[in-house]
Amino acid sequence: MEEFKEIINNKKGKVDVTPIATFFRNEIKEQITSKGWKPRVVAFLTSDDQGAIDYSKWTKIACNKDGIEFELKRVERVDLEDCIIEANNDNSIHGILVYYPVFGGMLDGYLQDVVSPEKDIEGLSTTNRFNLYHNIRYMDEKETKKCVIPCTPLAIVKIIDNLGIYDKSLQMGEHLKGKTITIVNRSEIVGRPLAAMLANDGAYVYSIDINGVIIFQAGKRYGTIKMVETSISREEAISKSDILILGVPSSNYKVNSDLINEGTIVLNFAGCLNVEESIQDKCILVPTIGKVTIAMLERNLLRLYNNQLNKKD
Amino acid sequence: MEEFKEIINNKKGKVDVTPIATFFRNEIKEQITSKGWKPRVVAFLTSDDQGAIDYSKWTKIACNKDGIEFELKRVERVDLEDCIIEANNDNSIHGILVYYPVFGGMLDGYLQDVVSPEKDIEGLSTTNRFNLYHNIRYMDEKETKKCVIPCTPLAIVKIIDNLGIYDKSLQMGEHLKGKTITIVNRSEIVGRPLAAMLANDGAYVYSIDINGVIIFQAGKRYGTIKMVETSISREEAISKSDILILGVPSSNYKVNSDLINEGTIVLNFAGCLNVEESIQDKCILVPTIGKVTIAMLERNLLRLYNNQLNKKD
Repeated sequence: MEEFKEIINNKKGKVDVTPIATFFRNEIKEQITSKGWKPRVVAFLTSDDQGAIDYSKWTKIACNKDGIEFELKRVERVDLEDCIIEANNDNSIHGILVYYPVFGGMLDGYLQDVVSPEKDIEGLSTTNRFNLYHNIRYMDEKETKKCVIPCTPLAIVKIIDNLGIYDKSLQMGEHLKGKTITIVNRSEIVGRPLAAMLANDGAYVYSIDINGVIIFQAGKRYGTIKMVETSISREEAISKSDILILGVPSSNYKVNSDLINEGTIVLNFAGCLNVEESIQDKCILVPTIGKVTIAMLERNLLRLYNNQLNKKD
Repeated sequence: MEEFKEIINNKKGKVDVTPIATFFRNEIKEQITSKGWKPRVVAFLTSDDQGAIDYSKWTKIACNKDGIEFELKRVERVDLEDCIIEANNDNSIHGILVYYPVFGGMLDGYLQDVVSPEKDIEGLSTTNRFNLYHNIRYMDEKETKKCVIPCTPLAIVKIIDNLGIYDKSLQMGEHLKGKTITIVNRSEIVGRPLAAMLANDGAYVYSIDINGVIIFQAGKRYGTIKMVETSISREEAISKSDILILGVPSSNYKVNSDLINEGTIVLNFAGCLNVEESIQDKCILVPTIGKVTIAMLERNLLRLYNNQLNKKD
């Protein structure tokens, strides 16, 4: 994108992702208006967490601007499962959103799977993740209903693409060939789907969590991935990277700036910044990605809305 | 059971669950022999964890004695998903077992769902858990394939039943009416399914995890459960309980014996004992349950084997 030209050329500075979000949201708005669609999202909030409340407000504002009805429901966590099932069965609802954590741990993983994959705009259900990891593009055998991709990893891929990092002169599956990327986070929500997507595009990916490092590479079959053990240290992985993606939900976690090479793209999706802000003096820093994530939520919603329209045909 | 009569009458002592395991395994052996069945299990071990290695050995010995072919495969954790999928697609394999932790966290939750629910002898897949929580007894609409129940909670219910605690003079769903039970563990593997099963049988269940206490009660619709918030403290819940079930995977965690009433049934399913052994001087202590869990694994296997036979018809 034109907006980022100077930063990309100088190989340093801070990137505001607003133009990327705007680009996608304009497309979405145009699609909704031209087709006369009336998509409707229900979002469930169970906690008083200020971060979740703020995020839900921004999402509502964005959705409403773009022609999407967005209903925020505050429910007790012990009632959430019933509420999700009701929304699954309500034909007037096209997308379901849940603000996590609810209980935390595996119980939240269970709740993610109570959301019908057909309304799962966040792309968090096991079905949607399994399909992503196995390059299955459709939910049904007839191939009428496209899968969705977890929205935060999708947002990150779109940001990297819009920074001009993808080499589109190469063939599909090799657009990131030669790039080394480290992701500090291996959750099933962001880190692992993201590692898979970037590996699918040809990158050599180091995936870091508290237990160590795993390499993600393209698998034998196109679109699939392979995990490989490695003895590389976290520090070494970071220092070898062209792109460093940070998502540790702790304000105490900061990567030592000395480990990061000049000109590295440092993208942060944690609620707090996992690196000193001064890194922008020698690197390209993307400190937050939330606006693009919301755009991807909307994008997933339209895909699922369209699937639901096809179903009725 | 006759073997436990003295302990039950005295309301104290240590229970060895071997007779319960033997009872079920004899039934299983008889069924396999009389029907000429040839059930086959594949178990995947990815770690050098001595506990998992020992448990796999005991399971193999038990299975082989009872007429079940048990193949233990050591695989790299990065290859496990492919191995599970291969086993899912192999008609000569009727049951799949994975020794966790593999990676730990949500990635292990994902792997549990890669195991086909039709071969999931541990009953850990989301499908099997969802069906348990919603009183759905069959995997298919035609009601030909019975669901399985997670094997550790099932073992615990069978132990409590065989200690004579269930009042069978009451109607179904009320066998544990008037009993207060505390479970210290709310995992999706044991604690929560167990809380649901005991609540289904009429018990008033306090479910404790590091974040606090939740009550599990029978729901409006028969066979379903309802979670309810409570402000009761952990200590108070424990001191009100007729049955205390402990499953904290840490040898540092021990419940203060003073909190536990005389005559309480204290059942421990953690690898280590979460209470002082001297509790048996005033309570009924079931220190380990592994043998019954293995019997329940076998029981689940036969159910799934039978489902697979029906499928071929």
